[in-house]
Amino acid sequence: MSENNQSEAQTSATLAAFIVHATWDDLPEGVRHAAKRSLLNGFGTAFAGCRDSALDISAATLLPFSGKPEATLIGRADKTDILTASFLNAAALNVHDFDDTHLRTVIHPTAPVAPALMALAERRMISGRDFLLALALGIETACRVGNAVSPGHYRRGWHITATCGVFGAAVAVGKILGLDKRHMLNALGAASAQASGLVETLGFMAKSIGVGASCRGGLLAALLAENGLDGPDRPLEGPRGFLTVTGDAPNLDDVSGALGQRWEILKNIHKPYPCGVVLNAVIDACLELQAGSGAAPETIVDVTLYGHPLLSQRADRPNVETGREAQVSAQHTVAVCLLQGAAGLAQFSDAAVQDPAVRALRQKVRIVDDTNQHVAGIRAVVTRTDGSTQEIIVDNARGTDERPPTDAEIEAKFRTLAAYGAADCGRAEELIDSVWHLDENTNAGGMMALCRPTD
Amino acid sequence: MSENNQSEAQTSATLAAFIVHATWDDLPEGVRHAAKRSLLNGFGTAFAGCRDSALDISAATLLPFSGKPEATLIGRADKTDILTASFLNAAALNVHDFDDTHLRTVIHPTAPVAPALMALAERRMISGRDFLLALALGIETACRVGNAVSPGHYRRGWHITATCGVFGAAVAVGKILGLDKRHMLNALGAASAQASGLVETLGFMAKSIGVGASCRGGLLAALLAENGLDGPDRPLEGPRGFLTVTGDAPNLDDVSGALGQRWEILKNIHKPYPCGVVLNAVIDACLELQAGSGAAPETIVDVTLYGHPLLSQRADRPNVETGREAQVSAQHTVAVCLLQGAAGLAQFSDAAVQDPAVRALRQKVRIVDDTNQHVAGIRAVVTRTDGSTQEIIVDNARGTDERPPTDAEIEAKFRTLAAYGAADCGRAEELIDSVWHLDENTNAGGMMALCRPTD
Repeated sequence: MSENNQSEAQTSATLAAFIVHATWDDLPEGVRHAAKRSLLNGFGTAFAGCRDSALDISAATLLPFSGKPEATLIGRADKTDILTASFLNAAALNVHDFDDTHLRTVIHPTAPVAPALMALAERRMISGRDFLLALALGIETACRVGNAVSPGHYRRGWHITATCGVFGAAVAVGKILGLDKRHMLNALGAASAQASGLVETLGFMAKSIGVGASCRGGLLAALLAENGLDGPDRPLEGPRGFLTVTGDAPNLDDVSGALGQRWEILKNIHKPYPCGVVLNAVIDACLELQAGSGAAPETIVDVTLYGHPLLSQRADRPNVETGREAQVSAQHTVAVCLLQGAAGLAQFSDAAVQDPAVRALRQKVRIVDDTNQHVAGIRAVVTRTDGSTQEIIVDNARGTDERPPTDAEIEAKFRTLAAYGAADCGRAEELIDSVWHLDENTNAGGMMALCRPTD
Repeated sequence: MSENNQSEAQTSATLAAFIVHATWDDLPEGVRHAAKRSLLNGFGTAFAGCRDSALDISAATLLPFSGKPEATLIGRADKTDILTASFLNAAALNVHDFDDTHLRTVIHPTAPVAPALMALAERRMISGRDFLLALALGIETACRVGNAVSPGHYRRGWHITATCGVFGAAVAVGKILGLDKRHMLNALGAASAQASGLVETLGFMAKSIGVGASCRGGLLAALLAENGLDGPDRPLEGPRGFLTVTGDAPNLDDVSGALGQRWEILKNIHKPYPCGVVLNAVIDACLELQAGSGAAPETIVDVTLYGHPLLSQRADRPNVETGREAQVSAQHTVAVCLLQGAAGLAQFSDAAVQDPAVRALRQKVRIVDDTNQHVAGIRAVVTRTDGSTQEIIVDNARGTDERPPTDAEIEAKFRTLAAYGAADCGRAEELIDSVWHLDENTNAGGMMALCRPTD
């Protein structure tokens, strides 16, 4: 059998071999930089999420049973064992769904992958380049496994960030541990036994348990493989393997094709706003209006959004009661943007939903389908009490593939997130600098000291 | 909506309410006794499994990160935190697949459920009755959830012991914690986010990671729910809930129908031999022959098995190389029984497969399909060098529904298992006595002291 045929027949083995042999020099500059952007964004969302009630409860439950305190919990005073830290940091990073998003699969790949590396980097010396290489490979693996089963997998009800993320964490850690191909396959096998996560839990704290377990499970899988735990030859594509069981007609080439040439991390987006991406253009339009002449919301009698039909299908929700629901309400979104001139976590909180001014203004918002609109565009028309109208047109919203945030915008988002909630990130600027220069650093674990409260 | 309709519409809620309200007095005597039998058998298989390489590797990997040593590892000197202990004891209990089996689903329900209770019983005082009640309810839940998705779930590739076991562990622990209905639902929700396990891993150590994670995950889910972690209303039957996602056409009545009347634990069997159940009759026949006149294997020229077609379909494997393969080889099974007069773990080990006498004799064994045979029966005909023949007929093998082992046979199996391998169970008789009288004991955790090496 030629090596090419072998590759086609052995998806898991081909992937494992690629991970084992990949080097820093193999990574295109764009991939290296994308890994840094995902990491910085991830630190930000972890700071913003680390005091969410899902995290407080998870930490209170796990810490009494946790071991040697060698790994940092981002934004918290506690240190804990590396398995527990990977669980909690992953959950924090993803709890607001504001971490990086791989659009084709809707995987948030940094959450299940990076915290395993962060924890390990406090237990053993890992260079910045090795950290970034492992992170890129882990993200690549999670997204490729996800591609192979998309879109049926998520549609059926699998929370794809968790189910596929465990493989990303396993290979990322396996890469750091220096596993050979057979051991890397065994890491994938031990990961496959732990792949879990259901869409039914979204909107509840239980979602974070799946994401945390995914990261912890991947770390554990690689450690088990290092110690000799064996597994099947084809954990992904075998007749009862992950892809076959959880995908309707998995496309194996999505996993093992063009490795080292096609990089999924380059298709990661960074959401500018903590809500459904279909609302990005609406926010851009309303913030533009507010920043220009001022919205003068008390004079508004009507806001009509002419949008791609997906806008009404996903986000026509005039009456919402929780912050989570508000994340997919066009009416709420228009109201907070025009009233508050911002679209951050505070604008999609439970408190924002209860604001009487927001509740009044959202009643004046209507959506009209316009099949000529691109999903990343919007035409918004505001009518005033004096009968005058204003029209704002956005062709290409922020946060799309075509209009990714600049590094400065990612930094700004990080700063906002790091200051959100009860977390204390007094060393935000040092951490930003540390991430951008991580490839020059011999000790990636040093970043984690910057994530602990300073007092 | 009437309460009855409510029940039909809300499978998870109906199950949760049943668990919350069930009392010791509600348990039929047969259910109470079945729980003790499963527990005693489970202690035995855990002793036999606790030094398996899958366990040695898992323990070596987890213990450096584990916490407060308050829970016993069966057959090992170490104590560890309750989450880690539940993982390792569950893996040990199931590693040989010699624990109790719910035939309709092929779930081994005690493995993911009992170790969570064992660990908790060393952290807080649990009466024997409460322990047995929680165990029975946990087994009931795992098997009912499994029934609802069988047979498609396992056939598709889900390792049902692990995927469904996590719900059993969650409600068993939730019962001990005294969760109310809403919190019990939340425990099911946190369990659903962790439901995992793939058939592809069977035959490898990776299988044990799924089973261990199932038990640990269920314990964690209940502890999280106790602390306030919320989850969906319908973690099982919701549109993206466990049953819907992992079952082809789940039958909800299998979960929530006739609760307290139909008891799945009564359908648990206890395998007398550590191999495929289709071989039970073959073993009975060969052991009868060996125990009678003696097999005189050197004089055998042919052994022909006239069996139900399932026998040849599952077990016609004259050439096997590992103990695991031998578990489904009729030829190996006949050879070891006639040569060694036993069919225990030692007879299905890698070493037994390499025995030249076994390898020679297995070549003389043939299988003939006989559609008149029951799957639990066999007709074996042995032909000697002098031309004489012997016929042994077994109508109803040991270990079937119709011929369950006696309590004395379960005790004997326990003693054999407890003495197998490197484990030290010097207090086997005390442990047997403790299980049979568990409902009279105010401190179930006391059993665990009997599971530690005596030196």
